[in-house]
Amino acid sequence: MTADERFAAAARELGHSFDGEIKIGGNYTPVVRDGGQLFVSGQIPRVGDRLLYVGAVGADIGLADARTAAAICAMRALAFVQRAAGSLQAVRAIPRITVYVRSAPAFTQQSEVADGASDLIARVLGPVGAHTRTSVGVFQLPKGVAVEVDLIARVD
Amino acid sequence: MTADERFAAAARELGHSFDGEIKIGGNYTPVVRDGGQLFVSGQIPRVGDRLLYVGAVGADIGLADARTAAAICAMRALAFVQRAAGSLQAVRAIPRITVYVRSAPAFTQQSEVADGASDLIARVLGPVGAHTRTSVGVFQLPKGVAVEVDLIARVD
Amino acid sequence: MTADERFAAAARELGHSFDGEIKIGGNYTPVVRDGGQLFVSGQIPRVGDRLLYVGAVGADIGLADARTAAAICAMRALAFVQRAAGSLQAVRAIPRITVYVRSAPAFTQQSEVADGASDLIARVLGPVGAHTRTSVGVFQLPKGVAVEVDLIARVD
Repeated sequence: MTADERFAAAARELGHSFDGEIKIGGNYTPVVRDGGQLFVSGQIPRVGDRLLYVGAVGADIGLADARTAAAICAMRALAFVQRAAGSLQAVRAIPRITVYVRSAPAFTQQSEVADGASDLIARVLGPVGAHTRTSVGVFQLPKGVAVEVDLIARVD
Repeated sequence: MTADERFAAAARELGHSFDGEIKIGGNYTPVVRDGGQLFVSGQIPRVGDRLLYVGAVGADIGLADARTAAAICAMRALAFVQRAAGSLQAVRAIPRITVYVRSAPAFTQQSEVADGASDLIARVLGPVGAHTRTSVGVFQLPKGVAVEVDLIARVD
Repeated sequence: MTADERFAAAARELGHSFDGEIKIGGNYTPVVRDGGQLFVSGQIPRVGDRLLYVGAVGADIGLADARTAAAICAMRALAFVQRAAGSLQAVRAIPRITVYVRSAPAFTQQSEVADGASDLIARVLGPVGAHTRTSVGVFQLPKGVAVEVDLIARVD
């Protein structure tokens, strides 16, 4: 299977489509290509017009759901990479992902939440998806969602 | 008008000067050039020795003021780009801005605050100012300010 | 003294060894090389299996300890740069560090905490360690630690 086929399979399994226009808020752009680096804006778990996983992780949202939210954010980011590069087969590396977890006061499993994004990237991209990661617990996120993920991809 | 002239016009309209030495705290540097990428340190809404907009957005600071705070942070960042590159005309792209909003517990309009920075960058740089963006709600910021913005610029 | 010797001296002074395998959690990788840029994952103050400095700065952890925590995070990051590049003598620049400080509600000295990382980098790398920096106050961090630091290094 190609990376694009694995992406499609992951979308089916998550039960969401990442085709069509992906809505983003605000006066900015989802992707900027700078040489061979693709910067992707911070993605929240939104599918079409629906916000998924609104709330603080560790209070309103459990770990399993938070991991799924992180996977959906990563899928959105990869969808933008796919469009900008023509195919996910063009990805050579993922130098960085940053995972922001809206956290309840005592919730300290930000790394475990971020694994939802990391596992998804590994599954879709294979070895070239090896990435560095920073995960932190923030106080709020846009529209109150549970997780936000941004990334930088190196493409051909 | 050139980008530098639009920068000067925006400074007049905001009512602040971004000339002269821009004070930054701590043992680090405001700009590092790495190849054609200029990394700019996190900027807070400080003009000269005066801290503007201290407080949590959604409690002490309203949305309109928070947007102005974000615009001032962006102006400071662009001032450093201007000095490092000689002119804002040298900017080719803004691959990334990150906007940290010190947020009251229920405040979820981080994207709307970040628009204050995005709109300013669009106004000054025009189409080359198109940028990716991550905005998050943090618990505190240095000196208790409401907003902090960092960015990466691609220059000639 | 070389940068590697200064690194070893700093490790002795901190009283910790950064040799051997440095444990990291989750499904990701500590370093990715992208052209001449080395991205290093977010580092927490962990030495071997021991987590150091767990708690909120300004409540459970004082400023001096938080600065040491930031220095340890920076040492871990430099240890990965050293391994990936063969030697710290290969470092040409540190374009960016980001310092996340788990903060008590009224704690606003994030810059002063981040100086712990900046001072360590200056000491080990000298002038090529000049870096841009963003420091923010977050609500939680993985495993409840007080500080997390990531960075990008330019190497030969």
